[in-house]
Amino acid sequence: MDKIRIGIAGYGNLGRGVELAVAANPDQELAAVFSRRNPASVKILTQGVPVCPLADAASWKGRIDVLILCGGSATDLPVQTPQLAALFNVVDSFDTHAHIPDHFKAVDTAARQAGTVGIISVGWDPGMFSLNRLYANCILPQGHDYTFWGRGVSQGHSDAIRRIKGVLDARQYTVPVQAAMDAVRSGGEPELSTRQKHTRECFVVAAEGADKAAIEHEIKTMPNYFADYDTTVTFITQEELNREHKGIPHGGFVIRTGSTGANGETRHVIEYSLKLGSNPEFTSSVLAAYARAAYRLSRKGESGARTVFDIAPALLSPHDGDFLRAHML
Amino acid sequence: MDKIRIGIAGYGNLGRGVELAVAANPDQELAAVFSRRNPASVKILTQGVPVCPLADAASWKGRIDVLILCGGSATDLPVQTPQLAALFNVVDSFDTHAHIPDHFKAVDTAARQAGTVGIISVGWDPGMFSLNRLYANCILPQGHDYTFWGRGVSQGHSDAIRRIKGVLDARQYTVPVQAAMDAVRSGGEPELSTRQKHTRECFVVAAEGADKAAIEHEIKTMPNYFADYDTTVTFITQEELNREHKGIPHGGFVIRTGSTGANGETRHVIEYSLKLGSNPEFTSSVLAAYARAAYRLSRKGESGARTVFDIAPALLSPHDGDFLRAHML
Repeated sequence: MDKIRIGIAGYGNLGRGVELAVAANPDQELAAVFSRRNPASVKILTQGVPVCPLADAASWKGRIDVLILCGGSATDLPVQTPQLAALFNVVDSFDTHAHIPDHFKAVDTAARQAGTVGIISVGWDPGMFSLNRLYANCILPQGHDYTFWGRGVSQGHSDAIRRIKGVLDARQYTVPVQAAMDAVRSGGEPELSTRQKHTRECFVVAAEGADKAAIEHEIKTMPNYFADYDTTVTFITQEELNREHKGIPHGGFVIRTGSTGANGETRHVIEYSLKLGSNPEFTSSVLAAYARAAYRLSRKGESGARTVFDIAPALLSPHDGDFLRAHML
Repeated sequence: MDKIRIGIAGYGNLGRGVELAVAANPDQELAAVFSRRNPASVKILTQGVPVCPLADAASWKGRIDVLILCGGSATDLPVQTPQLAALFNVVDSFDTHAHIPDHFKAVDTAARQAGTVGIISVGWDPGMFSLNRLYANCILPQGHDYTFWGRGVSQGHSDAIRRIKGVLDARQYTVPVQAAMDAVRSGGEPELSTRQKHTRECFVVAAEGADKAAIEHEIKTMPNYFADYDTTVTFITQEELNREHKGIPHGGFVIRTGSTGANGETRHVIEYSLKLGSNPEFTSSVLAAYARAAYRLSRKGESGARTVFDIAPALLSPHDGDFLRAHML
């Protein structure tokens, strides 16, 4: 069997996760890793696979079936995905919800022109959570959607705390409020404010002699990030942070409650949840599955941008239709 | 906008549910209901829609876009779905897991020959549960699957009790064992016996003077149905059964736990669950959504049998790609 030749662009947490995910998929093999750093400084896990300058990616055209883009959504992917879709089938995890339509258009244009397939916004939100919102809405047109995130680490909120004067390190957890989830599951279709849905737990390492009260106040009143939430701040040592808060767990819940019946008298609850030991390793695993779909669509002669909404689930599996119908339906 | 013209074949609990689901979808309209009973004896909810003999379905060719088959899997659908796929695009809820490959083949042959689309085994299990098994397996190739059903009414088990001498009526609930679900969610990947996963609760109306001890013994020792389970039997009056056990609720849980990382050291839990006020009304709502997909595939010129695995999620929605990307991704 010819394996699907995967390339990775960007070797941070996500890139390392994709490397592991590809190794876990018997029908895929890692062909190359591309980085903007000096390749000699990038040590990867897989033996015998080259690390190449991202600027030289074009020379790999024809030797990579799908390139998985592992850069950030703020500045990397808006440029890289359209650019690299001109050379390869690509999959990315672009997650700035408000800019997805523009990103889709840019990737679609580049991919159609090049005859490649580009699957964007793959991961868990956007990604698996989006799919579950869509399925549940199509099944229960009369109903309400709720998404809760956590308990998990928000990198953006942790960074915001670290920028405060006197803070050496920080880790922020987003935590769904149990009472709100219970109210939703009861089918009462409550209207929930930002504060009612999530709390924020901050673990902060302060510099010696720093004004802890001032730091706590600055965190709790920070607009957008914390002011609209019930926030707790706990000062800990760097050792404790390293020991207890090193991981990048995340997860969440997508719940739709809705009704059927002649007078909406029958209630239903659809719930999807994730508890992830590592946010980037799970996202990477989703990316690898959709790389398989990108490869197959491309072999069928399709081109252009796609999202998880456009991909038939069977395309994600290494098994064929006969096997899936016999064993998974 | 031209509405999708839906036909219903079979007007029991499922057919009535489809009628309600079609009414809840603004892009669908009910064209006709077909029944094997005397049409004059079948009263439907929708004003101005004819009830016709199933034997006359052929005369409706060209006036129905998708026929939703609402018969049983034991004897109706194996005959009806291939037969009617020769005339119409069809959707069914065939749920005898072991016979799905044969049923798929029969429908595929008929549909290809007629140039129609037939989507089989649509509902929640098979259906939404199957989809969640597939997605979770593709994302986490290293892991274990668990499906729990309930708390919900099993029609087959209720019928089995009603066939016992001295039993006037009965309702059986399948109940997942909380301790087993907790063990699964903890990620321990336990091996669970039939008895460890589900219990069975039976509510029985006995005839006056019937030997209740004998009935209870016959239930608890019935092979396949009850012998392998911890079963409780509660005798109640017909009035109480009618009052407290009239509904047909169901639901369940699909859980996959798995690992990623260089040494499988990172654990993840993916869970999908349903709490359904009415099993047939929910199944019907899934059928109506997949009727939309059957219509679209047919308009694109596709033909043959499909399952939920083959249907891109966007095809289920009344909204277009631009809307879905902007609002649901």
